[in-house]
Amino acid sequence: MFPNIPKGTRDFSSIEMSKRNYLIQTIRKQFELFGFYSIETPSFEKISTLVGKYGEEGDLLIFKLLHSGNFLKNRILDFLTEIKNDKKIVNISKCLTEYMSDKALRYDLTVPFVRYVVMHRNEIIFPFKRYQIQPVWRADKPQKGRFREFYQCDADIMSFSWSLWEEIELIQLCDEIFTKLNFPIIIYINHRDILGGLVEMAGIENSLWKDFTTSLDKWNKIGRNLVKKEMLNKGISSKSFDQMAFFFDMEENFYNKKKHLTIALQNSEKGKKGIQDLSFIYKNITNISLQKTKLEWNLSLARGMNYYTGTILEIVPFNNKSSISIGGGGRYDQLANLFGMNNISGVGISLGLDRIYLAMEQENFFQTISSYPSKVLFINFGNEEVLYAYKIIKFLRKKGISTQLYPNADKIGKQFRYANANNIPFAISIGKNEIKKNKIRMKNIQKRTEKEYDNINDVVNQLTKKL
Amino acid sequence: MFPNIPKGTRDFSSIEMSKRNYLIQTIRKQFELFGFYSIETPSFEKISTLVGKYGEEGDLLIFKLLHSGNFLKNRILDFLTEIKNDKKIVNISKCLTEYMSDKALRYDLTVPFVRYVVMHRNEIIFPFKRYQIQPVWRADKPQKGRFREFYQCDADIMSFSWSLWEEIELIQLCDEIFTKLNFPIIIYINHRDILGGLVEMAGIENSLWKDFTTSLDKWNKIGRNLVKKEMLNKGISSKSFDQMAFFFDMEENFYNKKKHLTIALQNSEKGKKGIQDLSFIYKNITNISLQKTKLEWNLSLARGMNYYTGTILEIVPFNNKSSISIGGGGRYDQLANLFGMNNISGVGISLGLDRIYLAMEQENFFQTISSYPSKVLFINFGNEEVLYAYKIIKFLRKKGISTQLYPNADKIGKQFRYANANNIPFAISIGKNEIKKNKIRMKNIQKRTEKEYDNINDVVNQLTKKL
Repeated sequence: MFPNIPKGTRDFSSIEMSKRNYLIQTIRKQFELFGFYSIETPSFEKISTLVGKYGEEGDLLIFKLLHSGNFLKNRILDFLTEIKNDKKIVNISKCLTEYMSDKALRYDLTVPFVRYVVMHRNEIIFPFKRYQIQPVWRADKPQKGRFREFYQCDADIMSFSWSLWEEIELIQLCDEIFTKLNFPIIIYINHRDILGGLVEMAGIENSLWKDFTTSLDKWNKIGRNLVKKEMLNKGISSKSFDQMAFFFDMEENFYNKKKHLTIALQNSEKGKKGIQDLSFIYKNITNISLQKTKLEWNLSLARGMNYYTGTILEIVPFNNKSSISIGGGGRYDQLANLFGMNNISGVGISLGLDRIYLAMEQENFFQTISSYPSKVLFINFGNEEVLYAYKIIKFLRKKGISTQLYPNADKIGKQFRYANANNIPFAISIGKNEIKKNKIRMKNIQKRTEKEYDNINDVVNQLTKKL
Repeated sequence: MFPNIPKGTRDFSSIEMSKRNYLIQTIRKQFELFGFYSIETPSFEKISTLVGKYGEEGDLLIFKLLHSGNFLKNRILDFLTEIKNDKKIVNISKCLTEYMSDKALRYDLTVPFVRYVVMHRNEIIFPFKRYQIQPVWRADKPQKGRFREFYQCDADIMSFSWSLWEEIELIQLCDEIFTKLNFPIIIYINHRDILGGLVEMAGIENSLWKDFTTSLDKWNKIGRNLVKKEMLNKGISSKSFDQMAFFFDMEENFYNKKKHLTIALQNSEKGKKGIQDLSFIYKNITNISLQKTKLEWNLSLARGMNYYTGTILEIVPFNNKSSISIGGGGRYDQLANLFGMNNISGVGISLGLDRIYLAMEQENFFQTISSYPSKVLFINFGNEEVLYAYKIIKFLRKKGISTQLYPNADKIGKQFRYANANNIPFAISIGKNEIKKNKIRMKNIQKRTEKEYDNINDVVNQLTKKL
């Protein structure tokens, strides 16, 4: 009987919401200052839009919707008939799933965005810069910091005539956001073409590329040894692994990494292209400079999503290098091809609102946010008094002062306790006496001081004064 | 191959988003001025939380989620084994659905809110005033103005010591919101106890109460004759119908309706209570006065949701009485009981964001909203020039001016066309010449005028001037 919510989901109280809204507003403001425009896509997409974009492990975590009502009933009946006639019994699992659903909750904001671009290609002016702040859903095993519903804040650019300035702008954008949040970060950067170059250098077959990136992506999470074990299991030789691992292990500054790699990848066109791209980004970022952000080349960064093809980025809190990622992104040249649109390149960042929230809670960065919006409570002395006071309530609200009316003429002490518990700083009492004397009596709840006012404007001044 | 989105869902372009955000911000602002606090609940709830709260027709429209990954696979295998062993074959449809899902997308915001209150009863300070602006999902047949995903904006109060001032506050709140939107509305008001009184008066059995309200709810949509037909089919006598219909048809002002009903319901305690409540609300609202809102007693108003027990409200645009409802609400005394919490009463309003949007589009109320946030485009002359200009870009953004950098050194004409098509009013050109002369060249795109500036502060002044 006592109600509960599904595993991996959360309720947000007004205190939590005020912090979440503060994060969202800070992020949104910077997205807009950088010229990204807001769009929204539906919570669910056709399954065909989503499947095959996130890798095999991702596909399994997509939340599917059941067909509803009569459609479902009829399909089940059809299905039963087929079972009775002993047809299709082999393929039953696939068949069942298809019967049950053709829709699924979005898994990220990137694939729906690319779907949007392809669908609306004729109305869109390119380069197209959009942002989206919406929830996504993953049927992952819930654990600390990992939820089944969580918010992503994405800014992406899709264009036919792109340049690496887009990457530079995105790094600047992250720096502005986290500087505003007073939250120092590291942005790890790498390039898929450099990983491609290393794979070439180590003589690994093309067919192992996806396995390689999927395993490498876990380098920081499960560590060198387990990644090696996984790669060897998948058919990468120990020698190949060691050749590449020299670079994944390397702890040098940007220019030394570049020096070593330039030699190692001198025969790989791909590798050279990757090094050139990163150098351009690094040089210009160094010139323009960053505030709260450190940009660091992390050669073991791979990113889990299949769709990345160029620069890749990952954001972690500065104070806690080993900690979970709070955002990431990269360039994807081929994603629109899957929907039949060629020669258009996308690049973007995705910030994990819930991860940022948790990290900021941990560091006590939220201290200064006031969590309760109401400024004044009107004590309820009865219907006549409330009716008399209502014009003052209206006036205060018109002046932008959040004002509450206690709904019933409960005991005065209870009403004051309500104000106190809700952090409402002032209470106004207009009883029979005040009406007779034409006065407004206001109490400062924290200071326990009380004053009578003749003029509503003096009340407004008192309430809009900085505390 | 060409992608598509599911029936009944929509993409929102940046132009649409700016209008939607304007509505949301206007509504949110008033919610907060009236002292409602923001909370959020998960998109999906346990099926047991939702089912049985919306009536039979509602239950069928709840979107269920499939179990995912291995869980689903194992359940299907179990299920197949049972089929092969010829067990449970009778109950297969129910069984299948239960195996497939224990979660569903929320259908409204009221039931999740009440679930929230019961779950968090020990942390909450009552009376509890919360607002929620989130999407809901219904597997309804899509048609004009009816979507499978749409936003509701809800403000509710739950309290142990409630009063009718809560209803009065909610009506005032709607009036403030629609006055701010410059959108005249009618709020239809009625009371479930008055309908209860009429049912008593007409000698209709208690068991027909749900059927009666479900049919009466369609009075404005399908008309008197079809409602009569439905009621007769459900076992209400023609005589009973006519006795009640006298009141549903009545076109009189509040006081005449009250006069007639007071006589008709003199033997119904329920009916008298309902009349007394509405009179209190009407009297005080008249005293306090409304701005853009007309409050009208509509005796045929029933509201579809099962959970209403007292006052009920429905909001329609003033200019289009027959039009679809853009919001509604009412009092629900029993809903928390279903989750095991007694003696607590709730009351709230729910505004349909998408319905308000469509009505405002139809009336051309959105004219004055600027839809593109960017103020200035930086023309890209090449890497050196961009690097030089980047400090100006950063400076403008710091000053709160949304600034875009064109990503590549495309032909100048193409870059200006981009600014024009995106309604970006200014373009700044810093080429080799400007760098040499240490000047900033800015073009007003609409006026086709150009000026050179020595000082970045003059540029800021120009850009922040009201156009």
